[in-house]
Amino acid sequence: MAAYTPGEQPQGSGWVKLNTNENPYAPSPAAVAAAVAAIGADGAALRLYPSPDSRTFRESAAAFHALPLEQVLAGNGSDDVLNLLIRAYAGPGRPVGMLDPSYSLYPVLAAAQAAPVIRVPINSDFTFDPSEIAKCGASLFFITNPNAPLGVAFARERVAAAAAAFPGLLVIDEAYAAFAPSDCVELVRAYPNIAVTRTLSKSHALAGLRAGYVLAHPEVIGLLDRVRDSYNLDRVAQAAAAAALSDRTWLTTTVERIKASRERLAAGLRKLGWTVTSSATNFLLSVPVREGRPASPETGMHAFEFLRTRRILVRRFPSHELTAAALRITVGTDAEVDAFLAAAADWTAGRG
Amino acid sequence: MAAYTPGEQPQGSGWVKLNTNENPYAPSPAAVAAAVAAIGADGAALRLYPSPDSRTFRESAAAFHALPLEQVLAGNGSDDVLNLLIRAYAGPGRPVGMLDPSYSLYPVLAAAQAAPVIRVPINSDFTFDPSEIAKCGASLFFITNPNAPLGVAFARERVAAAAAAFPGLLVIDEAYAAFAPSDCVELVRAYPNIAVTRTLSKSHALAGLRAGYVLAHPEVIGLLDRVRDSYNLDRVAQAAAAAALSDRTWLTTTVERIKASRERLAAGLRKLGWTVTSSATNFLLSVPVREGRPASPETGMHAFEFLRTRRILVRRFPSHELTAAALRITVGTDAEVDAFLAAAADWTAGRG
Repeated sequence: MAAYTPGEQPQGSGWVKLNTNENPYAPSPAAVAAAVAAIGADGAALRLYPSPDSRTFRESAAAFHALPLEQVLAGNGSDDVLNLLIRAYAGPGRPVGMLDPSYSLYPVLAAAQAAPVIRVPINSDFTFDPSEIAKCGASLFFITNPNAPLGVAFARERVAAAAAAFPGLLVIDEAYAAFAPSDCVELVRAYPNIAVTRTLSKSHALAGLRAGYVLAHPEVIGLLDRVRDSYNLDRVAQAAAAAALSDRTWLTTTVERIKASRERLAAGLRKLGWTVTSSATNFLLSVPVREGRPASPETGMHAFEFLRTRRILVRRFPSHELTAAALRITVGTDAEVDAFLAAAADWTAGRG
Repeated sequence: MAAYTPGEQPQGSGWVKLNTNENPYAPSPAAVAAAVAAIGADGAALRLYPSPDSRTFRESAAAFHALPLEQVLAGNGSDDVLNLLIRAYAGPGRPVGMLDPSYSLYPVLAAAQAAPVIRVPINSDFTFDPSEIAKCGASLFFITNPNAPLGVAFARERVAAAAAAFPGLLVIDEAYAAFAPSDCVELVRAYPNIAVTRTLSKSHALAGLRAGYVLAHPEVIGLLDRVRDSYNLDRVAQAAAAAALSDRTWLTTTVERIKASRERLAAGLRKLGWTVTSSATNFLLSVPVREGRPASPETGMHAFEFLRTRRILVRRFPSHELTAAALRITVGTDAEVDAFLAAAADWTAGRG
């Protein structure tokens, strides 16, 4: 059984880190203040166990999505929630389904539960066929929407069609939904077999605190609640997450800023002749090319290594044909986007 | 499948909270400073994922116990570690063994993994028989040492005898070991089938941050590492836990203070005529009695309810004969011990 390999987390400074889709901006000041307040002057609050069910955080998430509290369960990052979903719904004889390509953690979690994995391919036009999901035989099926690592968003109608036809639990992993034109939360109201997972790691700039949640029918939430650790989120994470979700102004401003940078980065890459997949996330999937080096995994690797010499980290997904030749580039600050584009221009011009 | 029921966590103030074995004192100032530093001035560090393998925290734990780094795995509280142990070593046909009574979370975690549970009784003299563990047929066996909810410590030689004879993995859950005269960490060096789990929730006063770890043979650690979440501890918890373990002076001072209060509490209760089990933890198991009310579950409940009217929370374990008549009382501050003893005296004298 293989462990999940997270993106490289260099501990030294001086890196332009565009490899793990972190938010380039500091989190909401309200979230930071709440984190500091949760520690308190002498830290005495830390001696007490946190709210077992992350009450305030869940209330904030429920208000954010206008759903009842009993349709929200909090996790130690959305990875915790994905894990709970697989533990509650999959196992030997209860396969895990997923679109291919998508988040490489699902098969790792499935293996830990001895559950078979069924992959439904994403078509070359970056869509999927709901009837393929419906008949695949999985007990639970993951649709990463927007997709990672492709970056594309799937239409809500297509997701709804899959939910209507699929006999198991359909999980919409919306880690990147804040950067997309729309999301599938309203489907939770209509379909008892839909669960939507969210993380505060990307759009809310709280990857360091591990906070995520799932929205679903109360019966699904009840099942997950029986599998989760009694105190799965600490006091600081609960407080910061609750405050972050309440600060909608910060979210809107930051997301708009990242989307603007994303479009500037996309335009810059297209100008260099690189192929860019339309993105509904905070990253771009782009295929580097230059004279004498057509699109290929080798060319992708060549560009990747060149960028690394400039201390710019991006990520490759060489094991799938839709991504093998590409780089996945996190949208950074304006300065990081500039540094990346300058390095990409140098590589494209053969300067290195 | 039943969920674990944690002790009540009242959110209002004014309670003397002696029900979940929290440390009554604020954590080490070094730990608090590290938590605040991990957030930073504007919280920008929170946007980045934490160290996936809790490197600094593990280094600190390794140094604390003079063990190599590869013999330490960090968890989101020791509950996370217990969960990982059961996921890696138990399942259908691979039973979980435990002493009875002990931590009521084990059967809950076993049920989530569809693993049968085998209970080996603790004798009425508060010892156990290593040969009963050896032949019980479990794949992994938990010895809570010191025991909760009894409070007694088992001799290291007895644990070693169990490890030598038991063919599976023997887990020594040392949540309370800092309050005991000795621990079993040195057995990790001698027995590749021993794992020792620790938490910073009790002795280090960090229940609110969820930090724990396990010490074991590198092969055991490797197995657990494949099942754990990639980022199972957040930045704040990692930083605070690392600093807390490095501050040995704070630990020694605090533990001595709690042990002194424990003995004062025990003496006070014995003076009232209550039975008190000798404790190697930060709590006491004590059986309330008064004229006309001999030791019984009903008397225990009567005293419990009386204390509750005084806004004093303790805990009962009515489902086991060794604990059914008793109250489990966390050792609090001097003022809390005084408040508890005053209320206990009132109840014993029939004033209420």
